[in-house]
Amino acid sequence: MSEQPSLIELALLELLASKRSLSLEEVSSELGLERGEVLEAFEKLSRNYMVKLEGGRISWFNGDNPSLFKPWGWMTHYKVVAGSTMVAARFLNPWSIVVAEYQLSGRGRFGKNWVSNLGGLWVTYKLRASPRAASISSIAIPLAVVEALEKNSNVVFNVKWPNDITFKGKKIAGVLLEAESIGEDIILYAGLGVNVNNEPPLDTATSLKSIIGELTPRNKILSIITSLVSRIEHYARRSENIIREYTSRLETLGRRVVVESEEGQLEGVVEDVDEQGRIVLKTDKGLMSLEPYKARSLRYVD
Amino acid sequence: MSEQPSLIELALLELLASKRSLSLEEVSSELGLERGEVLEAFEKLSRNYMVKLEGGRISWFNGDNPSLFKPWGWMTHYKVVAGSTMVAARFLNPWSIVVAEYQLSGRGRFGKNWVSNLGGLWVTYKLRASPRAASISSIAIPLAVVEALEKNSNVVFNVKWPNDITFKGKKIAGVLLEAESIGEDIILYAGLGVNVNNEPPLDTATSLKSIIGELTPRNKILSIITSLVSRIEHYARRSENIIREYTSRLETLGRRVVVESEEGQLEGVVEDVDEQGRIVLKTDKGLMSLEPYKARSLRYVD
Repeated sequence: MSEQPSLIELALLELLASKRSLSLEEVSSELGLERGEVLEAFEKLSRNYMVKLEGGRISWFNGDNPSLFKPWGWMTHYKVVAGSTMVAARFLNPWSIVVAEYQLSGRGRFGKNWVSNLGGLWVTYKLRASPRAASISSIAIPLAVVEALEKNSNVVFNVKWPNDITFKGKKIAGVLLEAESIGEDIILYAGLGVNVNNEPPLDTATSLKSIIGELTPRNKILSIITSLVSRIEHYARRSENIIREYTSRLETLGRRVVVESEEGQLEGVVEDVDEQGRIVLKTDKGLMSLEPYKARSLRYVD
Repeated sequence: MSEQPSLIELALLELLASKRSLSLEEVSSELGLERGEVLEAFEKLSRNYMVKLEGGRISWFNGDNPSLFKPWGWMTHYKVVAGSTMVAARFLNPWSIVVAEYQLSGRGRFGKNWVSNLGGLWVTYKLRASPRAASISSIAIPLAVVEALEKNSNVVFNVKWPNDITFKGKKIAGVLLEAESIGEDIILYAGLGVNVNNEPPLDTATSLKSIIGELTPRNKILSIITSLVSRIEHYARRSENIIREYTSRLETLGRRVVVESEEGQLEGVVEDVDEQGRIVLKTDKGLMSLEPYKARSLRYVD
């Protein structure tokens, strides 16, 4: 059930993003909606956004309004609707963050469609990184998402190699990494989709809201992830901790898996992971190493 | 086929309304769309809007961009999406004009739904008028629409009492009048829906584009209508011309009709129309006069 949000909800969100607080009459006037229509749209939005109606005024809690998120050292670009934050980022300078409330054609890995409904966090970081930092990003960035989720709940999350964050086997977030060379450096695009306050439309997915039973101010999650991404060079120089942390969360370790990759299907038991995010697979034909960006999908067979 | 416009088309329109001219790269970046997606959305918009793509830049012809329409003596409010321009106007001061590109719940007479798809002119005038001017408005405002349409084509349009403008029996525009008293004056809401460059989804409707085979800059139509509405008090003082003009366009005159009104059904032949827009119906029970605002629908039976 990947329903498109109503134009009324999107218009109200756009208005709240720019004005933060409005009387019901102002909303009626701005959007040309009857009071009842405004209340209905507010009620729907309030399931996925930290908005409140008090004394005849609708407001959006600053901490949940990503248009107000302005981390030091980054240019931020907020859009209620975007085709894809990955595409929007392509035209921006490094050290840009693009956040959208709704993506028309959110991209997952290998062009798979990614459902990005209202209340989630759909963001792309574009940064310039050393090759070493770029290569550790495939473990450091999923870990940054895990850390942000854990600091906002009292549960433990896992990583399903290569790019999914899970809770009890259900997907809560995904990471999409793309890279371009520029001289000796890498321009890195890290696209994150985190099911925070949305209702993911798939049975195989969950959201922070479903797990903890309440809404989380998304800027808290954004700021934790952003500060970790900002320190990627630092982590690249002392990667042991990162790898240890990542490995401790890697549910895929020790499991028998089938991986679909560009070069075909591989079956084996996951023995290890290295600092570039490659897994070592024990197959019938011996040990094989697999790059994270080559894996189209991973399925457990045990 | 009253298809909702795509979010991409609406987003592109919003962008063009505020920026007027953008390179394809700027559109891609702003909307997070691939070049191909931008071109596809442009192509769709160009069927209903005077937009052009030249030298890698998309622009919207000023004369077709109602956000640039700023007539003297009026406050203008432009919205790409609105619930209804009638509702938006309710909260504004008199001498306001609200224009929307798309109405979610455009209202026709008696709460009937009015389909307002992209490329039409959906506008509400809110003005303060003397009782006499308010009462002549039910003939003067339809006539203003006729005049604007005729000045932008070389064909003749008719009025189907009480509030439709027609061409060869097909509806091209509709007028919705609502009034509130304020002391001795009237606050008048004149809602107009004019099928200019849109494709009306009904067989019983047509548009200026279908008739003349090309797009018309909508601000030309807006400015003719606005200048006539601005002079409503003047017309109220010398109503003979208005009535003569209106009568000459009134296709309903002399026809046998069935009118559904608040008081039930009436059948008869339309004998006359007066300066308050009332028709005189010759029925089996004698002559009866009918107020325009009481008529729910009118059907020809000859």
